[in-house]
This record gives sequence, C-alpha cells and structure tokens, in this order.
Amino acid sequence: MAQQWQREYDFAVKVARKAGEEIRKAGESEIRVMTKSCTVDLVTKTDERVEKIIIGSLKEEFGEGTHCFIGEESVAKGEQCILSDKPTWIIDPVDGTTNFVHGFPFVAVSIAFAVNKHLEFGVVYSCLEDKMYKARNGMGAFCNDEPIQVSDVQEIKKSIIISEHGVDRTPEKVKKIFSTMQKILCIPVHGLRGSGTAATNMCLVASGAVEAFFEIGIHCWDIAAGAVIVKEAGGILLDVDGGPFDLMSRRMVSANNDIIAKRIIKEIEVFPAERDDAPV
Amino acid sequence: MAQQWQREYDFAVKVARKAGEEIRKAGESEIRVMTKSCTVDLVTKTDERVEKIIIGSLKEEFGEGTHCFIGEESVAKGEQCILSDKPTWIIDPVDGTTNFVHGFPFVAVSIAFAVNKHLEFGVVYSCLEDKMYKARNGMGAFCNDEPIQVSDVQEIKKSIIISEHGVDRTPEKVKKIFSTMQKILCIPVHGLRGSGTAATNMCLVASGAVEAFFEIGIHCWDIAAGAVIVKEAGGILLDVDGGPFDLMSRRMVSANNDIIAKRIIKEIEVFPAERDDAPV
Repeated sequence: MAQQWQREYDFAVKVARKAGEEIRKAGESEIRVMTKSCTVDLVTKTDERVEKIIIGSLKEEFGEGTHCFIGEESVAKGEQCILSDKPTWIIDPVDGTTNFVHGFPFVAVSIAFAVNKHLEFGVVYSCLEDKMYKARNGMGAFCNDEPIQVSDVQEIKKSIIISEHGVDRTPEKVKKIFSTMQKILCIPVHGLRGSGTAATNMCLVASGAVEAFFEIGIHCWDIAAGAVIVKEAGGILLDVDGGPFDLMSRRMVSANNDIIAKRIIKEIEVFPAERDDAPV
Repeated sequence: MAQQWQREYDFAVKVARKAGEEIRKAGESEIRVMTKSCTVDLVTKTDERVEKIIIGSLKEEFGEGTHCFIGEESVAKGEQCILSDKPTWIIDPVDGTTNFVHGFPFVAVSIAFAVNKHLEFGVVYSCLEDKMYKARNGMGAFCNDEPIQVSDVQEIKKSIIISEHGVDRTPEKVKKIFSTMQKILCIPVHGLRGSGTAATNMCLVASGAVEAFFEIGIHCWDIAAGAVIVKEAGGILLDVDGGPFDLMSRRMVSANNDIIAKRIIKEIEVFPAERDDAPV
C-alpha cells in the first residue's frame, strides 16, 4: 500500500514547482490586482492563471472526469466546494496573495489530495524561499527532501505562536482576534508571528520554527496540504474548541503537541465562520 | 567626500557576513539559552560570542581607542550607551534572538557607523535568507548589490504595516500596542506583519515589501543600520509623535513616504520608554 497514489504525489510536487516558477516570474513583472470580496481580499491575474495551469496539468495527466477539484479561484467563481469520496485535489494556487502583491517574502502553492474524504498527501511550495514541503500518509514530512519534525517544546512559556488577522474586518471578529492574541502573548509566550500565508504557517509548525498556528476563517485549500505535513512531522490538528479537526469547518489549531494545543485553545475566543461546504 | 569612510564601510560588510556565517553554524548545533531581562528576553552564547567577534575584528582593523562601540551585549553587561562625536560603531550581533532560538527564518546582524552623532552607513545581513542590505549616505541602498527602493504606495488602504509586540509584557504597554495595531488594521490596511527583528523589518520597508514599520521600545542598535538603509532607499524616519527621528529615543516610525507615516502616527498610542542614553 506504500506505493498507492505515488504517481499523483510525484506529479503534485512537479506541478507545484512549475506553478511556483510562474509566480516568481509574475512577481518580477507588472502585477494586476483586482478586489475579490472586499478592499483587503486581493486576487491577481496570477492567481487565476496559476490555478488554470495546475488544474489543466492534473486533468491532462490523470484524465478529465476521474478526479474532482476544489480550487480557491474556481470556488470564487461559483463552483461547488464539496468534499466527496472521489479522489479530490484541493488547491490554492497562490496562498498569500497580499504578500505576493507587495513582494513580502512568503508566497506558497498548496496542493493536497484526498480519497474517501481522507487526505492522502500534501505539497506546499514556498516559492520565494524556494522551500518544497511535502508529506504523505505514514511516510514522514520533508523540506527540500530533508526530514522535518515539530518542536519538542512542551512549556507554553517557551513557545512562539502564529495566527493571522485574516481579511474580514468585521469589528466584532477583529476584536475577538486581537483579544485572543493579547491573552496568548501575556501567558507569556516567547512571541507571536504571522507570515501572511496559512500554508507557510503550517510548514513553520511542521519544521519546528513555531509551536502552534491557529486561525478561524481559513479555507480548506489554505490548510489541506499543510495538515498532512504537520501530522507527518509529528504534530497534531484540532478544532478550535478542542474537538476533532474538520477540514471544511474553517477552524483549526495545528501544534507540535497536545499540551501546547490545549493551552492555546483555552484562550481562543471563537467567532462564527460559515463552513466551506455550506449550501450556497 | 564620496570616498570617506570607504574602508570602514567595506570592512563592515565583510565582518557582517562573517558574523552571519557564525550565526548560521551555531543554529545548526545545540543552542544554549540564558534569560536576559525576563522570561521572554532571550540571550544566547551566540549573541555574546558574535559581538566579541565583530568588535574584536573592528578594533584589530582600526586600532584600539580611536573608535567607540555601542553593542547590545556590552550595554547589557553595564557598558555606557552614549553617542558622542567620536567615530562610533553601533552593533546588534544577533537581531531576532528569539527567532534564532526557534529557527524562525529572520535573524540579522546589524552594524552602523556614526561620526559627529550622524549615521554614515548601515549594514544589515539577514543571514538565514542570505540577504546583505547596505547603504551609505547619499549613495543609495542595496540588497545583494541590487539597488532597492521603498514602495510608491500613497494610499494607506493599500499598505502593509509592520510592528512588533516587543519583550515587555507590562499589561498597560501590551494593551496600547494591541489597541494601536487593531486601529491600524481597521483603517483598513492590506495587512499587519512582523518578522521578529527590527533590523529586518526596516529592510522590508526599504525594499518596498511593506509601507511602514513602527515601534516603541526598540534600541539604537536594532535600528541604526536600518535607518540609513530606509533613508537611502527613499524612505523617511520620524518620531512616533511626528517630530524628528531621534536614534536614542527608543521610538521610531520608518515609512515609504510622509503620507503613510503621518496616517500611522495618528493611530499610535504612545507609552513611555526610557532613552538608551539615560543616566544609569
């Protein structure tokens, strides 16, 4: 069984690298920005073009119709976001579009593959850093082919925690996000960080640079690949209320271990986020 | 006059690179952490060793006694922090020690040189990224020998702003820091970021990846080199109340232009920070 989905996995790494090269090239030329949902949720021609390259390559390789696709830009254009039992690719072509527009150094391609609603592998290519993170079930996690593992810190006071402010500026949500961050900072922890991309944040957990990353409001395509990478690096995934992780719930805590995760969860002020698979 | 301090400038670049290599090597081996001022202000053997290497090299090259030195670790051990008219090196051997301890990818060597209390040049080596930022008065700013310049964004709503939470967990200060960040986020801006090192943050302003970086509580060694780099990249430096920038005041706004800087300043809730040159 170890070889199952090997061809899909190898191809995902190849296409992630190709997509990352496109993003790097686009970053050197003029960037055309459009607004997606509001003035702080940006989308560029690059996001749409790179998603087409990725999905086009996958369809060409594996045949139209046999695989399903959940892609950030396709969903934004009205396609369904349902995770069925069929082999499904979950894709964010440019995670960290705001960073991309500004030239801030964290921009990632995120490609995950699920079968029977179970994630089989994940690939995150942090293309400005040229770091290829990848993991498949039961086979460990890697960055540029070197094994990675989560931090062994068990003491919350010796941890760095990542979260993001997101793109929603609803006062009530922003207030809860800042209140949570302030309480966590004052535990105290060593520090708070945020790279501006959920996919990279999860790889920072997986490689042991930070102890935990949590966020409410992320989408399945931001975290699906990272979820496999964190788990295979020895970390854990939970819901923000401590229950089981649900990929479509838009709520997630990823951490190096249960002790750190549970301590963070005590401070998280939860606010509502509509599920990715909610009926339109 | 263009050639003045050329030898010092060239040597600073050389010694910054050497220091960065030491830091990278130390990061791969066991890291010994000591606590400096509190549980979140870390200092490692590496900080002290690298500062000794830098100051030792400078003294050897330029002769003991002719130059003065302000170094983070020397000041922590009780040396004076006074900027006189004499040629003075202002050094942070490891800016971002918390990042260094955790393996978070931003760690910088910061070396500046002042004469008659005026900064002549600055060198920031972001050693994990292998990016050498440098600038001298009137000669432009560079990253790995390529010219850099600040962003041309004039609209605050299209900006990314950087700040840091610092190492002080006094509730009153933390409250003001979070309140300021929340107000800025809700202008709204594209996003808030923080690399965990002031020196790197200033280089992110200088290279146009973000529009502004502000902080109260930073020290002169964190920002002296970055100040020259921001200015030479076309940016500006101000006090957090909009007055002139004062290197020893521990308060600073660095921005791509006056419009962005003044808009940020409107939101900053100021709290007291004892000057770097306050009598002990």
